[in-house]
Amino acid sequence: MIKIVFFDLDDTLIDTTELAERARRQAINNMIREGLPVSFEEAYQELLELINEYGSNFPHHFDYLLRRLDLQYNPKWIAAGVIGYHNTKFTYLNTVRGVRRTLLKLKEMRIKLGIITDGNPIKQWEKILRTEIDDYFDDVIISDFLGVKKPHSKIFEKALSTCGVKAEESLMVGDRLYTDIYGAKQVGMTTVWFRYGKHAKDDLDYLSYADFTIEEITKIPEIVRGLNSEEQLE
Amino acid sequence: MIKIVFFDLDDTLIDTTELAERARRQAINNMIREGLPVSFEEAYQELLELINEYGSNFPHHFDYLLRRLDLQYNPKWIAAGVIGYHNTKFTYLNTVRGVRRTLLKLKEMRIKLGIITDGNPIKQWEKILRTEIDDYFDDVIISDFLGVKKPHSKIFEKALSTCGVKAEESLMVGDRLYTDIYGAKQVGMTTVWFRYGKHAKDDLDYLSYADFTIEEITKIPEIVRGLNSEEQLE
Repeated sequence: MIKIVFFDLDDTLIDTTELAERARRQAINNMIREGLPVSFEEAYQELLELINEYGSNFPHHFDYLLRRLDLQYNPKWIAAGVIGYHNTKFTYLNTVRGVRRTLLKLKEMRIKLGIITDGNPIKQWEKILRTEIDDYFDDVIISDFLGVKKPHSKIFEKALSTCGVKAEESLMVGDRLYTDIYGAKQVGMTTVWFRYGKHAKDDLDYLSYADFTIEEITKIPEIVRGLNSEEQLE
Repeated sequence: MIKIVFFDLDDTLIDTTELAERARRQAINNMIREGLPVSFEEAYQELLELINEYGSNFPHHFDYLLRRLDLQYNPKWIAAGVIGYHNTKFTYLNTVRGVRRTLLKLKEMRIKLGIITDGNPIKQWEKILRTEIDDYFDDVIISDFLGVKKPHSKIFEKALSTCGVKAEESLMVGDRLYTDIYGAKQVGMTTVWFRYGKHAKDDLDYLSYADFTIEEITKIPEIVRGLNSEEQLE
């Protein structure tokens, strides 16, 4: 009997990757508009490499971009980048298509809902509050508090104990086979790989840990209904 | 002969103080809406004290606010504060009434324009770009680059040499008697105290350094015209 569905946040509930790409492109466009003397492609590729090396939460992307392009420090260009990035982020931040409908359907089925996510807790909450999906969820479990990241078992065990449910009563939905699916399977949850966004074509090494694979998030209520009715028949 | 007018940025060209107050109030409102168990007045006063002690550029206002209120770390409340603050800042950031008209008039009179400001260079440029006043100005001189703050003479001297003008050809306009007016006077500029915002009732110790006092920024073209025609009569 599935009593709770846990969701990953980035690229499962919220379209983060597409948004970040859009925001980065707009940042570069804005910098060039204010005089950055480099082609869009050169600057954009350099920014992607930088983010790849320093991580997406590094707070000095645009300062370092200038250094890497052999340009002098210029607060006007950096400010232009920050403005382009933030304006895009705040304007286009949105849930993945079908998410609200899916969450509402699950609530009607009296299924509890939770979020299990890595990342900076304040930034994760900012996404949840800005998209106004917080009221759907009974709990939000952020790995950062435990000093671990998915797929570490501790974060999934914490989710189960916080919500007072057993692994066999839980479904985990996520876009990443290793962190979400393999991780949840290790503690005994039923798993749904949401084949979506940049991980849709991932290396399939961990595919065997996915009990279900979907390409639309709206399939979740059906899966829950199927699992719960099968059990009643037994 | 006045050839250039230098302006201070915060509370002279841009309504920063009023905006910051509005943004902080909205931050607290948003935190309470998300469950912060404190009255608005208590939280707001604590935030003001905190900013007073740690400075307005301290990056952990809302984290520290929770500590000061004896509350546990809660990223949801912090995110709510950040959202309230940023949304207000981006929505209501604006120039002081009459600024655009004044700048345009001065340009028509072929007066050069500059900004002399303290503060974080990226944040200062963010304000300039967001309000779209940058095209009016020949130069923006930010004290941070010189490792000084107003009223240090070095920042005013740098402004003069950058713009290739003499002190006696320059007018400095600002809302703060000590940093803007006393500072500019030390290097020999003509000074206009813009009696506006939170410094409008300042201690008048430095009033003698102000050649003019105005309550509307739109008076500047008149002052310049007066100074330049007096000289022609001599």
